[in-house]
Amino acid sequence: MTTESALTPEQILGAAEDVLRRFGPSKATVVDIARALGVSHGSVYRHFPSKAALREAVTQRWLDQAHDSLQAVAEEGGPAGERLHRFLGTLFAAKRRKALDDPELFATYLVLVAEHSDTVAGHLEVLTGQVARIVADGVAQGEFADLPVPATARAVFQAMAHFHDPAHAAEWADEGRSTEDFEALWRLISEGLRRP
Amino acid sequence: MTTESALTPEQILGAAEDVLRRFGPSKATVVDIARALGVSHGSVYRHFPSKAALREAVTQRWLDQAHDSLQAVAEEGGPAGERLHRFLGTLFAAKRRKALDDPELFATYLVLVAEHSDTVAGHLEVLTGQVARIVADGVAQGEFADLPVPATARAVFQAMAHFHDPAHAAEWADEGRSTEDFEALWRLISEGLRRP
Repeated sequence: MTTESALTPEQILGAAEDVLRRFGPSKATVVDIARALGVSHGSVYRHFPSKAALREAVTQRWLDQAHDSLQAVAEEGGPAGERLHRFLGTLFAAKRRKALDDPELFATYLVLVAEHSDTVAGHLEVLTGQVARIVADGVAQGEFADLPVPATARAVFQAMAHFHDPAHAAEWADEGRSTEDFEALWRLISEGLRRP
Repeated sequence: MTTESALTPEQILGAAEDVLRRFGPSKATVVDIARALGVSHGSVYRHFPSKAALREAVTQRWLDQAHDSLQAVAEEGGPAGERLHRFLGTLFAAKRRKALDDPELFATYLVLVAEHSDTVAGHLEVLTGQVARIVADGVAQGEFADLPVPATARAVFQAMAHFHDPAHAAEWADEGRSTEDFEALWRLISEGLRRP
């Protein structure tokens, strides 16, 4: 039971995630979410003007979960190659955890993600921008070759799709194998970035 | 109308593809395929012992469509880098054509492919083996660095997933953009392969 006046968007999003997990994305309603919180559905609508807006906010929150730790890595100092390796490894670990620790919720989110292609595009733009920041540092410091930054960041991000795109989640189950594959691919990419 | 005695597996597979395109994978039956050929369903079963075997053969045929031209590229002589670029470009073009020229049939095949993971695994093994052959030539000729061949072939193939895995088909619609992306990623990979 939540006091209506103290209801925060974060509480609503948390309850929405529970309801989505329980009922699935096609059946979950705003009334279910309000009931789980012990408030009227009007209280939910006060924060999110429509069911679509609420679903989008839930999707955004899910996509952004590893965002803070990734931003921190992107902003670290030190050699760009090591930082990029850490960034891509952190990203892979976060996606892998989501896919394997709670497969039902992951499947639910894949449905939501397919509905909100703009939200996903924004999320990918943030990630590619973080990669670009590290690539730019590497080029500026002379650690990387003199590469065009945005195109190279995009290429690095696409090259690693196997290790962050949910479409490949089924291939992440074998941790030993996928870690080996990640490192082999990283070696290829990092050689490709280095100043000759 | 086909004479039963002259009925070839290839004719059955062609008819099965038409029926799958028309009825979709959940509704297409062996009786529909036999009817399209003007033969009894017994004649179809003489070549394919079960509906599952027939669906698997159709899937295999679809996966192998670009196989001969890819094998020819893998076996060409000349510089390994150029050959690998041509191989990956031919693969991307073939997958792209399948996805964009006949989207309904493509969607149908994605359903079949999901049912036949062993068939897909075999297909991917053949492709990775062809990449390995080119990488081995590049290493032997001293054009590429002294890299472990199977792991590197696997890494190259995974790096290019964006440009051959059907999971990424939605991202191939913009030909100019995806060609640019392909070339940017290829430059990174080819730099990574080269002898320093």
